[in-house]
Amino acid sequence: MRILVTGSKGVVGQKLVQELAERGNSVFGVDIQHHPGEVGYIQRMSNEEWTYSRCDIGEYRQIERVIKEAGPFDLVYNCAAEFGRWNGEDYFEQMWKSNLIGLKNIIRLQEDHKFKLVHFSSSEVYGDYDEEMLESVMDTVEIKQMNDYAISKWANEMQIRNSIKLFDTETVVVRLFNTYGQGEFYHPYRSVNCKFCYHALHGLPITVYKGYFRSSTYIDDCVRTVANISENFITGRVYNIGSNEFHDIETLADIIWKYTKAPQKLIEYKEAEVLTTKIKKLNNDLSIKELNHKETISLEEGVKKTIDWMIDYYRLKR
Amino acid sequence: MRILVTGSKGVVGQKLVQELAERGNSVFGVDIQHHPGEVGYIQRMSNEEWTYSRCDIGEYRQIERVIKEAGPFDLVYNCAAEFGRWNGEDYFEQMWKSNLIGLKNIIRLQEDHKFKLVHFSSSEVYGDYDEEMLESVMDTVEIKQMNDYAISKWANEMQIRNSIKLFDTETVVVRLFNTYGQGEFYHPYRSVNCKFCYHALHGLPITVYKGYFRSSTYIDDCVRTVANISENFITGRVYNIGSNEFHDIETLADIIWKYTKAPQKLIEYKEAEVLTTKIKKLNNDLSIKELNHKETISLEEGVKKTIDWMIDYYRLKR
Repeated sequence: MRILVTGSKGVVGQKLVQELAERGNSVFGVDIQHHPGEVGYIQRMSNEEWTYSRCDIGEYRQIERVIKEAGPFDLVYNCAAEFGRWNGEDYFEQMWKSNLIGLKNIIRLQEDHKFKLVHFSSSEVYGDYDEEMLESVMDTVEIKQMNDYAISKWANEMQIRNSIKLFDTETVVVRLFNTYGQGEFYHPYRSVNCKFCYHALHGLPITVYKGYFRSSTYIDDCVRTVANISENFITGRVYNIGSNEFHDIETLADIIWKYTKAPQKLIEYKEAEVLTTKIKKLNNDLSIKELNHKETISLEEGVKKTIDWMIDYYRLKR
Repeated sequence: MRILVTGSKGVVGQKLVQELAERGNSVFGVDIQHHPGEVGYIQRMSNEEWTYSRCDIGEYRQIERVIKEAGPFDLVYNCAAEFGRWNGEDYFEQMWKSNLIGLKNIIRLQEDHKFKLVHFSSSEVYGDYDEEMLESVMDTVEIKQMNDYAISKWANEMQIRNSIKLFDTETVVVRLFNTYGQGEFYHPYRSVNCKFCYHALHGLPITVYKGYFRSSTYIDDCVRTVANISENFITGRVYNIGSNEFHDIETLADIIWKYTKAPQKLIEYKEAEVLTTKIKKLNNDLSIKELNHKETISLEEGVKKTIDWMIDYYRLKR
């Protein structure tokens, strides 16, 4: 199968490219920066096989060119997006452009070129819904998203629904729950898991909000399940992709602080964070049933793997 | 002096920040990606002193916010730009946005906030002018730029001239000549020096066009001179910043191939490249006189330093 992965240098994208290639697919990646190995258009820039191009999906000409020159593709995974709540507040121009204009560009091309699409959404669409998050509650409960990033993800899902209705496009949506792990290079807008690990290793402070619960998902488990969609594509489906490893934030900090032996004084405990979902507990029955979702790595194992990788990646001493 | 450097994670910017700080200035940097150590706006992201912010100068709100929240600045170095001829053809959307809208945003803020500005232009503005490139030929000779990137650089210089005329803004323009060296991390659109070194080390082929001459400038020599502007700012000036180390491309390839012991068969020799200036010989009398420009590192030394750095940076074996 010929597959395009947008956001191929991102945390999920880089692993997904690898997984799909190992299964024998021909995989092409795009992301927003130049990288060694890419091939230019007017001037050839490398003699390697062409597997990567710089491409901002928010720029129609660039994504159209990839589809035309590196395609045709049977399947496109759209992992390209500006990620994170605070990122979406501090950088809303990039976020709206990549997430909304970007997906719309892809949908327009999909309507023309007829590839299948897997689009990455987020548990953030569930807003402050405080019961178990089942996919279908988005069709039955009136939910308001609590930040620009969440709103954009939900707007994306509606763009897709409308296109399926109007043009019979074939798309699957996945809503990821707190995916973390090896390969999640740090910046301040990353997952709480990444952030805590990095801060513990660098002697930076963190704030732990009490009584907040998350379903953390190790990257390998997430990516395997997402890759399985290529082998069982049911158009129109929406899947929660996440682990039943349901934990509070105190527990996460405990594991990290024990393993790194970081000073306890770096942790400040607080009671409440504004506009943040208190409990995110997913129901993943559908992805288990149809996508053979499996949890092979516990929170404790996953956090340790993440820390070990970070120490190597940032050339730290233990 | 309080100084802002845009493009502070770029090849020139990162060195310039360092140089200006070592001279006792208070330096703030912005670039288009997130980095560890940055401080958020709505939510604080680090306890470090705030010296860096993500900021796309093509987005007015972001650059205005930096000026307001991290300023006031006495001086702004605008190194932020999409770089390179082929990059400008393959990625013209980003190029026009960063280079034209970006600078215009800064000029508008300059008109309001009255900081001094140093803007980075390029030898590419001289087009195919085939005599010694003296700054003033741009006022006396009708020259056409040969690619979008060059056109954008010339358009920038005209934006600045108009602003000086209309609003008495204080700006110096520097035209860089083939700056290269340590810190120039590779992608296929980099300087010919960077490209050849990287290709030699990775067994990738190169094409050498015969009879093309360049003035190569080691990064340290370039940056020292550019930093000197902060100590002798003469508004309205345009400076060529470059070395008298005038050489053909064959000589450059020879030095690199000897030092790396790369196979000769990687080099293909050709006669002519389309729309490329054959000879770029600068006159740097003015920067020597007013900015104390010095050449301390020869082409051969500079290339060896670049290769040594690359081997370490990319974790290669000799």
